[in-house]
Amino acid sequence: MSGERLIYLPLGGAGEIGMNAYVYGYGKPGQERLILVDLGVTFPDMDTTPGVDLIMPDISWLEERKDRLEAIFVTHAHEDHVGAVGHLYDRLRTPIYARKFTAAIARHKLDEHGAPESALVEVQAWPQQLEFGPFKIGFLPISHSIPESSGLCIDTPAGRVLHTGDFKIDASPVVGEAFDRGLWEEVSKPGVKALICDSTNVFSPEPGRSEATLQPALEEMMSKSTGLVVATTFASNVARLKTLAIAAQRSGRTICLLGRAMRRMVETATETGLLTGFPKTVGPEEATGIPRDNLMLLVTGSQGERRAASAQLAQNGYLGLKLQEGDTFLFSSRTIPGNERGVIKIMNQLSEKGVDILDDEGGRYHVSGHANRPDLQMMHFITRPQMLVPMHGEHRHLREHAKLGEAGGLTSMVAVNGMMIDLSGNRPTVAEYIETGRSYLDGSVMIGAMDGVVRDRIRMALNGHLTITLIIDENDEALGDPWVEVMGLPETGRSKKPLVEVVEADLAKVMARAKKSLLRDEEGLDKELRNAARRTAQSEVGRKPEVEVIVSRLN
Amino acid sequence: MSGERLIYLPLGGAGEIGMNAYVYGYGKPGQERLILVDLGVTFPDMDTTPGVDLIMPDISWLEERKDRLEAIFVTHAHEDHVGAVGHLYDRLRTPIYARKFTAAIARHKLDEHGAPESALVEVQAWPQQLEFGPFKIGFLPISHSIPESSGLCIDTPAGRVLHTGDFKIDASPVVGEAFDRGLWEEVSKPGVKALICDSTNVFSPEPGRSEATLQPALEEMMSKSTGLVVATTFASNVARLKTLAIAAQRSGRTICLLGRAMRRMVETATETGLLTGFPKTVGPEEATGIPRDNLMLLVTGSQGERRAASAQLAQNGYLGLKLQEGDTFLFSSRTIPGNERGVIKIMNQLSEKGVDILDDEGGRYHVSGHANRPDLQMMHFITRPQMLVPMHGEHRHLREHAKLGEAGGLTSMVAVNGMMIDLSGNRPTVAEYIETGRSYLDGSVMIGAMDGVVRDRIRMALNGHLTITLIIDENDEALGDPWVEVMGLPETGRSKKPLVEVVEADLAKVMARAKKSLLRDEEGLDKELRNAARRTAQSEVGRKPEVEVIVSRLN
Repeated sequence: MSGERLIYLPLGGAGEIGMNAYVYGYGKPGQERLILVDLGVTFPDMDTTPGVDLIMPDISWLEERKDRLEAIFVTHAHEDHVGAVGHLYDRLRTPIYARKFTAAIARHKLDEHGAPESALVEVQAWPQQLEFGPFKIGFLPISHSIPESSGLCIDTPAGRVLHTGDFKIDASPVVGEAFDRGLWEEVSKPGVKALICDSTNVFSPEPGRSEATLQPALEEMMSKSTGLVVATTFASNVARLKTLAIAAQRSGRTICLLGRAMRRMVETATETGLLTGFPKTVGPEEATGIPRDNLMLLVTGSQGERRAASAQLAQNGYLGLKLQEGDTFLFSSRTIPGNERGVIKIMNQLSEKGVDILDDEGGRYHVSGHANRPDLQMMHFITRPQMLVPMHGEHRHLREHAKLGEAGGLTSMVAVNGMMIDLSGNRPTVAEYIETGRSYLDGSVMIGAMDGVVRDRIRMALNGHLTITLIIDENDEALGDPWVEVMGLPETGRSKKPLVEVVEADLAKVMARAKKSLLRDEEGLDKELRNAARRTAQSEVGRKPEVEVIVSRLN
Repeated sequence: MSGERLIYLPLGGAGEIGMNAYVYGYGKPGQERLILVDLGVTFPDMDTTPGVDLIMPDISWLEERKDRLEAIFVTHAHEDHVGAVGHLYDRLRTPIYARKFTAAIARHKLDEHGAPESALVEVQAWPQQLEFGPFKIGFLPISHSIPESSGLCIDTPAGRVLHTGDFKIDASPVVGEAFDRGLWEEVSKPGVKALICDSTNVFSPEPGRSEATLQPALEEMMSKSTGLVVATTFASNVARLKTLAIAAQRSGRTICLLGRAMRRMVETATETGLLTGFPKTVGPEEATGIPRDNLMLLVTGSQGERRAASAQLAQNGYLGLKLQEGDTFLFSSRTIPGNERGVIKIMNQLSEKGVDILDDEGGRYHVSGHANRPDLQMMHFITRPQMLVPMHGEHRHLREHAKLGEAGGLTSMVAVNGMMIDLSGNRPTVAEYIETGRSYLDGSVMIGAMDGVVRDRIRMALNGHLTITLIIDENDEALGDPWVEVMGLPETGRSKKPLVEVVEADLAKVMARAKKSLLRDEEGLDKELRNAARRTAQSEVGRKPEVEVIVSRLN
C-alpha cells in the first residue's frame, strides 16, 4: 500500500446545488483507478446562461483518463444526479451501475443517445458488493424524495468510505424504503474512513418530517374544497404523487395525470414494482366529463416552467381542461431559489381566474427530501467517521456542514469542485487543483462555458446590436457611405431623428476624413467605424451596442 | 352633485408590487378633476427586461388630461412611490406635494432633471388640509419602514376616502411617528366612503412586530461577534440604520457608512431633523485603522445589487476595507422575490472568505414594514369604510385582501391597473377600462414596453444573431456570394465545419438557383436568404438565430 492513496474529486455538485459528479480514486498518484458517482445536470437561467438548454459538468479531466475509469454509479434518478448520462456516455464509454428504478430512468436517457445495451447494468442493493479494481461498492438504500435512492459503501485498501447520496431520515416514506438505521450502523461498525455527506438542508434547524405526515392535511383540504383541485409537485416524487392520489380518492375525487413527466414517472414506478395501490386514473378527455368536485388533476410544472401543464392551466387551459372561480390549486412543493418569478407569475394568473392557491407555506402540504441539521448530526453519530467531507451544496452549505461536524468532534474540510482531496491520512488534505467548469448543451451542440458564445448573447441582450456594412472598390475607395442596421435598440434618441440615420451621418463624416491608408487597413478601419458608431449611439440613446463591421472589398 | 362621480384609477401598483401611481377624480364623467397619488418606479430583470434601466407607469392617459390634473401627492420616499417624479415631471408639469423628508428626496430627483423650484411643495401633516378643486387632502402620519410615511385623507363631495399608503402598525418605530390609532379613529369618525389599502403582507398570518423589538438581539449579536461586523439593509430604512448603529455603539463598535445611498440617507434624515442620536461615524480610511472587533460597517446592497458595497466587499473589498475569516455579515433585510440569485451569490462569496452570514431567517434580525393580515383587519376595524379597495400588491394579494375584507363584512373589489372604478354608489363598480402599461428608461431614452426593442434583445439572447450581406451590381447580378457573420452562436455544429462556412455554402446554392426576378425582388430575396440561413443553422447547431439581411445594390 506504500505510496498509494485514496482521493476524492468533485467535478460538480460541491459549491453548487446541481450537476453532481464525484470522482473517487485509489492507487499511486497519477495512476489511481477511478470510479465516478453520479453524472447530473443543472438548469440554465436568463441571467447567466440565456439560450442554453442544459448545463453539465466539464468532464475533460475524466475523459483524458477514461482508461483508468472502472465504473459509473448513479445513486438516484433525480436530474441533477442522472441527467447527463445520455449526453456524456459516449465520451466516457464506461458502464453505468444503478438499481432497478434508477436504471429504468437512465435507460431511457441512454436510448435517446443511442448508447449500447451494455452501457447500463442493473444492480441489487446491499449486501451485494461489486468489485472494480481496488474498490468494492455496495448500494445502501436510503430515504429521499424519489424511490430507491441509495448511498454507497465504497471499500478501498485505505478504508471504507460512505457516500450518502441525497437523503433524509424518514421512517415512513410512503413509497420505497424507510431509513434503516440498523443497516447504516452495521456498515459503520468496521469503522468509517470518510463520510461524504449531503449538505443542502444544513441551515434547517428542525428535524425533518416524514412524508407520511402530509396525508391527513391533504385529505382534509381535498374534502373541503368545493371545486376542482389541481396539485403540482415534482413528478419524480412518487411518494408525494401517491399521497396526493390517496387523498383525492378518499375525498371522492378521480385522478387525472397531466404532463408527460407525470405520466411517465407513474408508469415507470408501477412497472418497476415500486408503486403499488395507486388509484385508477383517467385521461383528460374523460376528466372533462367528471363533476369538478369529484376530480383532482395531478400536474407537472411546480417550478413555474413555461410550457408545463401548470403554466398552461393558469393561462388558456390544457387538453380541454380549464380552471375557474372556486377551483383550488396546490403547490405541494418548495420553490427552488431562482424560480420564484415563474411561480409567482402562475399564481397571479390563477388569482385572476378566481382560483384559490395553496402552497408549501408552513410545511402543511410539503416536506423536504433532504436531511435537516439534526438529521445530519444523527448521520454523523451513526457513522462516526474519521473525517467528514460535505458534498451537494453551495459553498455556504458545505462550510456550515463542516463547522457542524467539527462542533461534534469530527475532522472536516470544505472541498469544492476541482479540489482533489487525499483521504488517505488522518485528515483530508488538498492533493491537487484540477481545472473544472461547466459544459453547455446549446441547441444540439455542446459548448464550453468560457467559449464566449453566451457572453456575446448577454451583451446583445444588455446593449443591443448594430451592424455596419461598407463596400470598398477595386481602387480601395469606398463605394457609397457605410450602412447601418440595428436590432434591440430604440428607434430614436436625443436628437429625435432615427438612430440609424444619425449613426450613418457620423460614419459618413468618419469616411470623409479617412485617409486612403485607413481604407486599406482592415483592422484600423473596423476599429474606427466601430468606435464612431458606439460613440454616437452612446450620445443618442445612452448605450454602446455590440457592433459588427462588415467591409466588402470588390478587389 | 347629480351626474358627478368619484373615480379611482390605478395606473401602477395594482396587480404588481412596484411603480405605484393612483389617480382619483371627481366630476362629471369625462370631466373629472384629477389628482395623482405617488409616482414610482419598478426595477428591471434579465428575464423580461434585459438592458432596461428603470420601469415606470405609462402615464399617457394622464398626460392627455393634464389640464384636469390638480396636484400630485407623494406618500413616502420609497423608490416605488417617488422614483419616477424626476423622469416624468416634465410630461405632467403639475406640482408635487410631500412632507419634509419625502420632499427632500423628491427635490434631489427633480433637480437632476432640471425641474423648476415650483415643481415641489412641502406640506404639513394633518390637521392641515389642502384644497384642489373638489378635493381636500390631508397627510395622515403612519408608521412604515421609512420616516414620515403618510396616508392621505381625501375629502370629496361624494365622501371621505382614506388612502393608507404603505404602512405597518408600529407603536415604537424607533425613528419617526408611531402609529396613532387615535388619529385614524378621528378621521374615520365622520364616516369613510372608501378605504384604499396596502395589501402586500396579506398572506402573513401573525401580527407585525415593532421595529424596536430588534434592538436586544442585534446588540447581543454584535457583542458576541469577535471580528468585523458588516450589516446591510435598505438605506431608506432609517429606523433600522439607527437600531443597528446603536447596537454597534453599545457593543463598542465604531460605525462606518458605505455606499452613496447609505450616506445620503443618513444625511437627509439628519438634516430634516428626523434622525437624532445617531452615533458619530467614520470614513473608510479611518475605519481601516480601527481593530476589527471595534468596527461595524453599515452598507448598501441588501438585495444583491451587482455594484453595491455588499457585492464589492464580498469580492475584492471596498475602499480599502476587506473581509476575512471570522468576520460576520448580517442581512438585516428580506430578499425581494426575484433577487434571490444575486443575494445567494454574495452569500457564497462571503462563505468562501470564511465570513459568517446571518440573515432574516426567523425574523430575529428583521421585521417587515408592511401590515400583516391581522393588522389589515385592525385597519378595517378602525376605519369601518363603506367599501374596501385593496391596492399595492400582486393580483393574488389584492384578491386575498378583498376576500379578507368581505369576510369581515366589508364591500370590496379587486381593481387592477387600468380599471377605472366608480366609488360614488354603495359599492364599487367598473366605470371604464383604460389602456395602461409600462414605460422603460432605456439608457437615456424612454421606450414603450411594446415597442419590440426589448423583445428583440431577448430573442438575440436566446437565439443568437446572424448577419447576411450581399452585393448586387448594376445589372441586378450578385457580386460574389453572400457573406455571413454570427454573434452568440457556436462556432461549429453537426458537420464539425465552421457554422459560418456551412451557412455561406448553403446560401451560395440558393443564389445559384435563384432566378433573376428574385434578385430584383427586395423582399423575396431577403426572405429566401433568411429562411435558408435559419434552416441551415437549425440543422447545424439546433437553433434558429435572429437574422439581419443586408443587400447592397450598386445601381
